[in-house]
Amino acid sequence: MVLALIAPNRDMKPWADAIRKEAPEIKVEIYPDISDPDQVTGAMLWNHPEDVFSLFPNLKWVSSLGAGVEHILSDPLLPEHVMVSRIVDRDLQQEMSRTVAMAVLNYYHEIYSYAIEKDLKIWNPSLDKPTLKIGMLGLGVLGGASAQTLLSLGFEVFGYSRDDENVTGVKTFGENELEEFLGEVNVLVNLLPLTPQTENILNYEFFSKCNRGTYLINLARGKHVVDLDLIKAIDEERLSGAYLDVFREEPLPKDHPYWSHSKTAMTPHIASITNISTAATQIVENFRRLMKDEKLNNLVDKLKGY
Amino acid sequence: MVLALIAPNRDMKPWADAIRKEAPEIKVEIYPDISDPDQVTGAMLWNHPEDVFSLFPNLKWVSSLGAGVEHILSDPLLPEHVMVSRIVDRDLQQEMSRTVAMAVLNYYHEIYSYAIEKDLKIWNPSLDKPTLKIGMLGLGVLGGASAQTLLSLGFEVFGYSRDDENVTGVKTFGENELEEFLGEVNVLVNLLPLTPQTENILNYEFFSKCNRGTYLINLARGKHVVDLDLIKAIDEERLSGAYLDVFREEPLPKDHPYWSHSKTAMTPHIASITNISTAATQIVENFRRLMKDEKLNNLVDKLKGY
Repeated sequence: MVLALIAPNRDMKPWADAIRKEAPEIKVEIYPDISDPDQVTGAMLWNHPEDVFSLFPNLKWVSSLGAGVEHILSDPLLPEHVMVSRIVDRDLQQEMSRTVAMAVLNYYHEIYSYAIEKDLKIWNPSLDKPTLKIGMLGLGVLGGASAQTLLSLGFEVFGYSRDDENVTGVKTFGENELEEFLGEVNVLVNLLPLTPQTENILNYEFFSKCNRGTYLINLARGKHVVDLDLIKAIDEERLSGAYLDVFREEPLPKDHPYWSHSKTAMTPHIASITNISTAATQIVENFRRLMKDEKLNNLVDKLKGY
Repeated sequence: MVLALIAPNRDMKPWADAIRKEAPEIKVEIYPDISDPDQVTGAMLWNHPEDVFSLFPNLKWVSSLGAGVEHILSDPLLPEHVMVSRIVDRDLQQEMSRTVAMAVLNYYHEIYSYAIEKDLKIWNPSLDKPTLKIGMLGLGVLGGASAQTLLSLGFEVFGYSRDDENVTGVKTFGENELEEFLGEVNVLVNLLPLTPQTENILNYEFFSKCNRGTYLINLARGKHVVDLDLIKAIDEERLSGAYLDVFREEPLPKDHPYWSHSKTAMTPHIASITNISTAATQIVENFRRLMKDEKLNNLVDKLKGY
């Protein structure tokens, strides 16, 4: 049984090293250097090549390199019997919570305005802090952890979740209560999974239901957002601005209007980076379970898409 | 018995309103409109005029409008028998903790570099996050609360404290262990009280003892820092930069080098603003205690200076 690492354009050597260090008995190979494709029963995937699954007739399980699995599930050639899992990692949760906290606190403290005023040598303290009501779009592994961090900073937090997820202290709205949810909040943090249902969810119609001046923080996927709708909503002052870490196309093309818009703050997809060593531990655990025909951890519901 | 509010150049009407709302029985007057100075037994002070104490022969107690009391204790004309207290407020703690978290997270995520790169349309993700070891200068009411917030964000935190203050999970160094403390950390958060002993403590000699590349966050008082020493230490790359919210002179003079330095991030003294309504509750409680000759809350040790 061989574990294949399939992530073209990415240096997978550190992943192979981490897995071998953790479990010398596991045979790890980096695609395309696979000695015997018939031996491959498990694979780690990131932006895999088209039609890769047909090469491995005995593949039983694939894992994402990170928390998102849409790059796997969106492939129509993924065989039905192949199980899909993702990385669920305390480190990822912590990294994401830190980024959520940072984005919220920078908005709360108007840090981008002060940076501009520094350049202009303007001393203009704003003594009234806004009362933030923060809405989490998605209350899963990352959204739930981030909500707890925001609560510990003393903010009021609301949740919107398709599932029956519950975070103590967070009033949560279900799938059919989007308008009620949006009516409560003035900051939105998007940590939804990307699925056919959530793609383009952040569009003009959605923004029209937000309270005037709502601030958007997108840390999930670029494809959740209809970019021109977001810019229109900001320019019409329906939204007060946005902090964006993820984009439909990455790197963000040079001619994209986000670059020069004064009310978009941006980072280049750095919100939450998978820690290779802790992720390797999870891969090893799942591959060992696979070898022993035991139930795998962190499996994804393919129908739901996460 | 009259409570006098003495803060020239500051609108004290909201304070008077908040105190009257909380305690209609207390007679509040705003300086200089004091009907009978002999009746004044308590006062709230912020940047009081010279020689104001001689006007009130029966003054027994003064409170600061905020957490700092150096503006009161540094007055040589403060009568020895007058008790001094300060505002110790959960709101102040929360506000300060939020600012500490923001400043640390912006450094951790290199947010100021990304802001510059956005202007230049450069996509340059940094995938290696630094391992921060955060040193709190001062572990009192604000430093202790901020340390707890940093711990909850998963950071390693060290403390430097003259007193025997203890925060679970924070390794703390005493007054004579400054070098050992500085040897442990690569981020410094200053929340020391301003006293004759701590004035100018952040000077070139101090910075020379820091680990190379240490980042300074000053949220206490401008007079803790020798400004030109800080700039020299940054320019020599002993320090990697600074986030400053407080300054020796406020507003910061237009010709001060901080304004145009690329490695100083700044806000105009907005880190932690006293909440009038919760502070009024404390003032009322102490004035009632004063009237009944009971022990006051949050008294300051005049010898220690905090």
